[in-house]
Amino acid sequence: MAAETNGSSSPGTLQSICYERGSLRLLDQTRLPLETVYLDIKDSSDGWTAIRDMVVRGAPAIAIAAALSLAIEVFNLDFSGTPEDAASFLIKKLEYLLSSRPTAVNLSDAAEKLRSLVLKTAETANEAQTVFQAYVDAAETMLVDDVAANKAIGFHGASHLGSRLENLQKISVLTHCNTGSLATAGYGTALGVIRALQTEGWLEKAFCTETRPFNQGSRLTAFELVHDQIPATLIADSAVAALMKAGRVNAVVVGADRIAANGDTANKIGTYSVALSAYHHGIQFYVAAPITSIDLSISSGDQIVIEERSEKELLHSDGGRGKQVAASGISVWNPAFDVTPARLITAIFTEKGVIRKSSEDAFDIKGFIENAK
Amino acid sequence: MAAETNGSSSPGTLQSICYERGSLRLLDQTRLPLETVYLDIKDSSDGWTAIRDMVVRGAPAIAIAAALSLAIEVFNLDFSGTPEDAASFLIKKLEYLLSSRPTAVNLSDAAEKLRSLVLKTAETANEAQTVFQAYVDAAETMLVDDVAANKAIGFHGASHLGSRLENLQKISVLTHCNTGSLATAGYGTALGVIRALQTEGWLEKAFCTETRPFNQGSRLTAFELVHDQIPATLIADSAVAALMKAGRVNAVVVGADRIAANGDTANKIGTYSVALSAYHHGIQFYVAAPITSIDLSISSGDQIVIEERSEKELLHSDGGRGKQVAASGISVWNPAFDVTPARLITAIFTEKGVIRKSSEDAFDIKGFIENAK
Repeated sequence: MAAETNGSSSPGTLQSICYERGSLRLLDQTRLPLETVYLDIKDSSDGWTAIRDMVVRGAPAIAIAAALSLAIEVFNLDFSGTPEDAASFLIKKLEYLLSSRPTAVNLSDAAEKLRSLVLKTAETANEAQTVFQAYVDAAETMLVDDVAANKAIGFHGASHLGSRLENLQKISVLTHCNTGSLATAGYGTALGVIRALQTEGWLEKAFCTETRPFNQGSRLTAFELVHDQIPATLIADSAVAALMKAGRVNAVVVGADRIAANGDTANKIGTYSVALSAYHHGIQFYVAAPITSIDLSISSGDQIVIEERSEKELLHSDGGRGKQVAASGISVWNPAFDVTPARLITAIFTEKGVIRKSSEDAFDIKGFIENAK
Repeated sequence: MAAETNGSSSPGTLQSICYERGSLRLLDQTRLPLETVYLDIKDSSDGWTAIRDMVVRGAPAIAIAAALSLAIEVFNLDFSGTPEDAASFLIKKLEYLLSSRPTAVNLSDAAEKLRSLVLKTAETANEAQTVFQAYVDAAETMLVDDVAANKAIGFHGASHLGSRLENLQKISVLTHCNTGSLATAGYGTALGVIRALQTEGWLEKAFCTETRPFNQGSRLTAFELVHDQIPATLIADSAVAALMKAGRVNAVVVGADRIAANGDTANKIGTYSVALSAYHHGIQFYVAAPITSIDLSISSGDQIVIEERSEKELLHSDGGRGKQVAASGISVWNPAFDVTPARLITAIFTEKGVIRKSSEDAFDIKGFIENAK
């Protein structure tokens, strides 16, 4: 059973995954924004429960939390057996962790990668401890790499925006949904760009939308911005166009669930609406995402199937968790995502740099990735 | 004390003000959408309480409910006195009713109109009953006129849309906020157009937005649509652009809080965002409002000051009435309205007909009103 620790894990940037070798604590996101409680994770069983109970959410964060919970377990393990026994032990535990959220692609990708590493190490290892050590190193590397990628995204994004400050001292940036420390291993993608702007002293203010119907903006992004003492204002999704017309936003930065080869971007419902308003008001609109979000097998956004979510998110308050608000008997259309066409996107911030448009107002994403290798 | 009656007042169109000479019942909007309860209003005191407690809301509805509550009181009144005494009695009661919602402009306009009528009648009347009768007639006329104006708006709007059906059998219409029987004396403005389309058999489906942050769409418009058995679907405000991109909407019809002389229209926050999406997708965007919503003293929307509402509407669930949802310490910008520029508006539906654009893509509203007299 995971123990609780109150209060913030560290000053500065919010961390949802607090890891040191032998110690893992996860911020309980089900209790945000009203309570900041960390759960001590002692083993893969604690990790499994934390993922199943939505203590940790966001695709990269789930994968890394799972991997690290097993790293904690084997770090102090008193194990007698062969390297092959160690590999079997780890693979069985990885399969168990996978069952906590069977549809999470990042989690199954990570498990597969760790499984290969464990099997390969066992082939040449002389003792079980060597296999465990290789696993722990790999799990720790996933954490470090994800945070490093996010910081690189933030650096490239902030540098790009900073170079365009022109006669402005500082800029105000709008974001949508949650793309911060609560959705990633740390720092965040679009919210990482905002953090980097703040660090550079270039941020006037961040605006975050409520992000209906599940309120990721008002619950999570607002929480992160307050935590990091970044000047920030919450608005209704429907107030975005009025805010832009009032001249209060200089740029938009959002995350991505999936980016097609042509740059069309699937992201949280409402992103497309924000992009249309930005386009109309001549405001630059950026996507911030790791290279892994780019799916070159999809030529355009038309091929992205949009998942529909529960009607209850609109019919009940608090994203479906509270009491009934809407009239009984009304039909609901509740798409999880929309697709913003590449033509409305100014540039894409990645950990490898900024993907700009080529002369013909189109992205050459494949070329960018090949050059970045 | 007002008594309660359960259930719907009549089959067919929802009525929030149910009046017959000697009987007034008001739909208790504070209990919508979960309960449909009518309160019996016996006198001006009941009327005052109903307005103060938000049983009735919407500027036209408040004015008419107040006037009718006094009509009920004097209808059965055993009064001994002169015509001047009758006038004094009525004027005192009107002043009392005004104090229920001192900032409601329609209410003070109506009270002033009724006061003049009462004083004028008393000058020539031979008995008190003549003054009371004139008052009752005038209050009843207000109710009839408002419903008639809304039905005329609905007729003109539906006819205009019907004439543009072309190769479509039916059309789907999106609306924002609540402009129905719950905001007016009955039938509604934008929602009146949707009702008229339904009556004509021209409506495929109505879409209503949640209308954050106070949820007038999910609470009230959805309730009216379900009540009237109009095929309808509720969406998040942020899903409007995705819905339009999917080709599921043929036209938008919204109400107006105020229309400037050039056609710029102030309406519930989010209307401007809907208009931008409609424009981008080549979808016609209409405003439906009585002539009284037009303010020729304002040359453009730039002169309209936008009221800001309580932060609590975003920080707490259920439009501010539920538990805290958003992170503590976050700033909020919560404008009540935005202004949609005339250039994004296809035409304006009024009770006097459709205000179309002249050749130079501008409205001649002053000319229209003069011709309509």
